[in-house]
Amino acid sequence: MNERGILFLDDLLKTEQLDGLLFFSLPNIRYLSGFTGTDGVFFYRSNETCFLTDSRYIEQAKVQVKADRILCYRDKLQAISELLAETALGKVGFEAEIVTVALYERLRKLSAAIDWRPLSRQLKSLRAVKSAEELRLLRRAAELNRQAFEAVLPLIKVGISEHDVALELEFTLKRLGGEANAFDFIVASGARGALPHGVASDKRLAGGELLTVDFGTRVEGYHSDETVTLAIGQIDGNLRQIFDIVLEAHDLAIKVLQPGMALAELDAVARDFINRKGFGSNFGHGLGHGVGLEIHEYPGVSPQAVDTLVEGMVVTVEPGVYLPGRGGVRIEDTVVVTATGCELLTSIPKTFRQI
Amino acid sequence: MNERGILFLDDLLKTEQLDGLLFFSLPNIRYLSGFTGTDGVFFYRSNETCFLTDSRYIEQAKVQVKADRILCYRDKLQAISELLAETALGKVGFEAEIVTVALYERLRKLSAAIDWRPLSRQLKSLRAVKSAEELRLLRRAAELNRQAFEAVLPLIKVGISEHDVALELEFTLKRLGGEANAFDFIVASGARGALPHGVASDKRLAGGELLTVDFGTRVEGYHSDETVTLAIGQIDGNLRQIFDIVLEAHDLAIKVLQPGMALAELDAVARDFINRKGFGSNFGHGLGHGVGLEIHEYPGVSPQAVDTLVEGMVVTVEPGVYLPGRGGVRIEDTVVVTATGCELLTSIPKTFRQI
Repeated sequence: MNERGILFLDDLLKTEQLDGLLFFSLPNIRYLSGFTGTDGVFFYRSNETCFLTDSRYIEQAKVQVKADRILCYRDKLQAISELLAETALGKVGFEAEIVTVALYERLRKLSAAIDWRPLSRQLKSLRAVKSAEELRLLRRAAELNRQAFEAVLPLIKVGISEHDVALELEFTLKRLGGEANAFDFIVASGARGALPHGVASDKRLAGGELLTVDFGTRVEGYHSDETVTLAIGQIDGNLRQIFDIVLEAHDLAIKVLQPGMALAELDAVARDFINRKGFGSNFGHGLGHGVGLEIHEYPGVSPQAVDTLVEGMVVTVEPGVYLPGRGGVRIEDTVVVTATGCELLTSIPKTFRQI
Repeated sequence: MNERGILFLDDLLKTEQLDGLLFFSLPNIRYLSGFTGTDGVFFYRSNETCFLTDSRYIEQAKVQVKADRILCYRDKLQAISELLAETALGKVGFEAEIVTVALYERLRKLSAAIDWRPLSRQLKSLRAVKSAEELRLLRRAAELNRQAFEAVLPLIKVGISEHDVALELEFTLKRLGGEANAFDFIVASGARGALPHGVASDKRLAGGELLTVDFGTRVEGYHSDETVTLAIGQIDGNLRQIFDIVLEAHDLAIKVLQPGMALAELDAVARDFINRKGFGSNFGHGLGHGVGLEIHEYPGVSPQAVDTLVEGMVVTVEPGVYLPGRGGVRIEDTVVVTATGCELLTSIPKTFRQI
């Protein structure tokens, strides 16, 4: 039982006047119960937690899950319906961003007496503030990034393909204990660096290019996310100029980041600086996003964000400038919000490097 | 434009009396349009295909997508609503197994004039019958399995950990050109082989054990799926007995598999045989599942299945027997249904091997 999570749920039951909460999202279930398998349901009502899974996972659940009851089902929806009938509940909340229309129809049919309440914004901050244990795993994932990058750096030179750089990083991270790639690594050189989604290709690195490497891994479910931009040999003055601008925007945002600051305001610090330098139209994405059991999670850091930074949130800071046909720069760290500012979880040096 | 797919959609429009169809599922979108990115929408009405994506993917879409119109959006739901308003449609079908309750609410609010129709069973067979090109990619993925297994086999011996076997397989598949693991590889030895979901652990292989290796990769979106069970040194008579039973069940099912056969009947051929041998209660899962752009897709091959095998479908045949605390055997090939029977796509030998 995750105490922080259960407090959140108690609050939610009160605020929304609900009698129970049903969870299908695996990251939410893992957060609330500790279960790491890929099929299960978590149910909460005041002072009672219940976890349901099938025969494939029941032994695993008995070891991992902290819940008042652990039930094994043959038919998931039937089991949910029996559980709800047994506790005679009225209003039950569920994850509207996860439950499909088809699943909802089946739930409604099987448990017609329940007053189903779709929850969306009410759930978004459930996992936003990280515990000491979560921060330990996020730090460990970031540390694997550092070690792997250091090991692979000597291979990054003219002639190697983007794809081979990505594979070497992946293999090194996995040998170090990373569970899986956090996402499809972006290894984008030269003009390909201007594609914000330039996943690794067969293109080989050439002199005079910028190289963007955006990668991360997973440790006990928690992700790392970090981007380094390197110069391959001598680059021209324009490329060096955008590197310096992006680095300064990145440093500025990290300097001002603190609890109580609006997410949109943090985005604006980096964006306004890049705007003033004349490259505003070349920075088309948000400044960052939350990182945890999902690689992209609440809170998004963008001009549209409405909430505020809270101590213990973990977000990326990743400004970028992309010049179509020329190249791009993105510089990204993952940070945790502290009482007075922020602390970097990622630790690969971000200052200009020519190799 | 995928002709087989479009014929299916035309049929669906008629049968369900719909004016249009909206797709959010990435495998369905890839199948219908050729788009390989991770965000987009595909819309179909009689004789018109339309693909929508955002600025990150618009250049890629222009190259990949075969559609009458390709639109770039800033706000996805707004763009859908404008497209639907422009064509003044009545009934629009959508994927009820994909669209979440929250997304559906937004769609309904933005396009209140539309009569939204959730589709579930009507869509399940969309991708079931594979084209020659799809079979080429499935064969290629299966061929990578064979090559990787052959390369890694010499490393499989007493003392190596399950995890290291899984990593070597993964690295070899990726060096050979596999895009990603089809799923978390199962490398389960000794008693762990009795866990149908025994993903690779730090346990080291020991003599006298059975080792189950269930793995696959991805080529241009299409998956391979195959399971080999090996004996590590001399195994006892009981383990050898269940190996022989599972292999015979596997061979029997492949022998009788042909178009027109009920999926449940195919499952029964293997299940009844294992039952007669006294191990029915140790075979707790279905005989197989469809494989294509998703690693698990329609049709499932199980006692509950209601449909029938059709020429061109691709399914796994994977009977298993699991003895708690002792060990397990699973033997799996992926096959394509032909006019008169079936043809194996996977080609690692499945006969008894002691190493």
